[in-house]
Amino acid sequence: MSAPRYDVLAIGNAIVDVMSPCKDELIEELGLVRGGMMLVDMDRAHELYDAMGPAREISGGSAANTLAGLSALGMQCAFIGQVADDQLGEVFAHDIHAVGIDFDTATRAGPPSTARCLIFVTPDGQRTMNTFLGASQFLPADALDEELIASASVLFLEGYLWDPEEPRAAMKKAIAAAKAAGRKVAFTLSDAFVIERHGDDFRALIEAGEIDILFANKVELTALTGEDDFEAGIASLAPLVPTLVVTRSEEGAVAVNGAERAEVAADPVADVVDTTGAGDLFAAGFLAGHVRGQSLRHCLAMGAVAAAEIISHYGARPEEDLKDLMKKRFG
Amino acid sequence: MSAPRYDVLAIGNAIVDVMSPCKDELIEELGLVRGGMMLVDMDRAHELYDAMGPAREISGGSAANTLAGLSALGMQCAFIGQVADDQLGEVFAHDIHAVGIDFDTATRAGPPSTARCLIFVTPDGQRTMNTFLGASQFLPADALDEELIASASVLFLEGYLWDPEEPRAAMKKAIAAAKAAGRKVAFTLSDAFVIERHGDDFRALIEAGEIDILFANKVELTALTGEDDFEAGIASLAPLVPTLVVTRSEEGAVAVNGAERAEVAADPVADVVDTTGAGDLFAAGFLAGHVRGQSLRHCLAMGAVAAAEIISHYGARPEEDLKDLMKKRFG
Repeated sequence: MSAPRYDVLAIGNAIVDVMSPCKDELIEELGLVRGGMMLVDMDRAHELYDAMGPAREISGGSAANTLAGLSALGMQCAFIGQVADDQLGEVFAHDIHAVGIDFDTATRAGPPSTARCLIFVTPDGQRTMNTFLGASQFLPADALDEELIASASVLFLEGYLWDPEEPRAAMKKAIAAAKAAGRKVAFTLSDAFVIERHGDDFRALIEAGEIDILFANKVELTALTGEDDFEAGIASLAPLVPTLVVTRSEEGAVAVNGAERAEVAADPVADVVDTTGAGDLFAAGFLAGHVRGQSLRHCLAMGAVAAAEIISHYGARPEEDLKDLMKKRFG
Repeated sequence: MSAPRYDVLAIGNAIVDVMSPCKDELIEELGLVRGGMMLVDMDRAHELYDAMGPAREISGGSAANTLAGLSALGMQCAFIGQVADDQLGEVFAHDIHAVGIDFDTATRAGPPSTARCLIFVTPDGQRTMNTFLGASQFLPADALDEELIASASVLFLEGYLWDPEEPRAAMKKAIAAAKAAGRKVAFTLSDAFVIERHGDDFRALIEAGEIDILFANKVELTALTGEDDFEAGIASLAPLVPTLVVTRSEEGAVAVNGAERAEVAADPVADVVDTTGAGDLFAAGFLAGHVRGQSLRHCLAMGAVAAAEIISHYGARPEEDLKDLMKKRFG
């Protein structure tokens, strides 16, 4: 087994976020579920875009956001995801290359266009996401270069990938390639509604011991385990994964690593502008610590710093220098 | 002469801004002129985009930004400008419609694509702009609906329109239509380099009495009049236009209306994030006051409030409620 070339390789939906602040009433008027992620078709995407105020476009995608955070923290990263041959595809590729991430998946001649996520941000900073998967749902199995997968210490996958059929089928191949090369597989549950759709798949993966590091928030923990009680959820899931990380918004986060357990409070944020990417960046901070062999508590603390940065501005990609922030915090 | 249907009709380049923070050194490395606007071709645009960090896309265009401010202040507005039939064109149209502005110029089948402006923002908040005019340079004379022009109290034009050949030729037609309908023509000089290229045209328009309200900053005042001394510049230009408005960044602004002169200080801003759109929004505040028949001093003060809002965040479109800000300031 040769030394890994990358710290983290992520496979994810390649999405550009279209973000706009909105009043609370609009969420109800549009029949949206506050705080959730819904899949929308092109017609619904147009309907929602028409109802949206002036917006800004910022590259997104859950795993890609995590990777941007990891790269900002000095990790060597690569990304696999499908964009179309269009302007939003160029924007996505530019933004991921601009932070030093290798990304070579061939663009796909349209239609459909590059995926976009229409994000309504209410005054409390909560985001409600509506994803048009577009080209992203056509990530083919042959884009999953097994050598590339074998060359990364950690393979990071997002639960959102289970929604589109082609990537879902390809994921098992990716996991098998990582395992065969002796690498770790990290997985984020993404969203409670995704778990409603694909929970059986996720549970099967976890029970088969395919997942080494599992990220969830407390709502996802409940959706996956069926346990309403937080501690009961942790107790039922922790024995199945070597490392379990559960975030709970302003209440901080918990990690369990075998017999070891650590907790961390949320970092204080003066003004929560937009929570988009909070979980993604928590995962980035945690994984960066994990790859460097930091203590469980320190990994959590790094996650909290990265999450606090991301919710203090619009968009799910870091704007402040994360390395600087970590240095200020931990010396 | 019937009552106007619109307060302000603007004609301008239809541009999406691609904005990224950058270090001071990058401006030099790329051979850019700090604070200016350069026209770039597709090759240079790609070269600059490749050198740019992760960016965000926000609709822009000088006159369109002014109009977004006017609309936020309750003015009835319409826009004429050329986008291509592409994703950035959709973004531009969405964002202008979303703030209640009428915009019906037919999209143009590409290539070239919709105009974009690559904006490097240095740590002091100064913006350095590189515009690929794309579809915008093909705004045809027949897009300038004379009835529409006659239906607006004020026709607002940006000096940037003189760069592309087709719109430049069309502008005289637009001005003639406005004048024939007894409307006012407002004009912004846009940029010192634009004046280098088209100063003779601008001076001819002004001397012919075609411009009723002229917006300039102090650098543009010098470029147009050849007077290095601010007061000498004002003295040479003011007699030629009914209303002259000259901004001077943190030193505030001056307006001259015949024998009347007013001045205003800049509004304090805690943290200048990005000066893109400062002049555009100053013009919006001033024009909103002007249309409502406010005093010259009050128009300037409204301009200062709108400019202060825009430089406190990324992007040249208002994010805070400008009506609220005016109410807080003026009661």
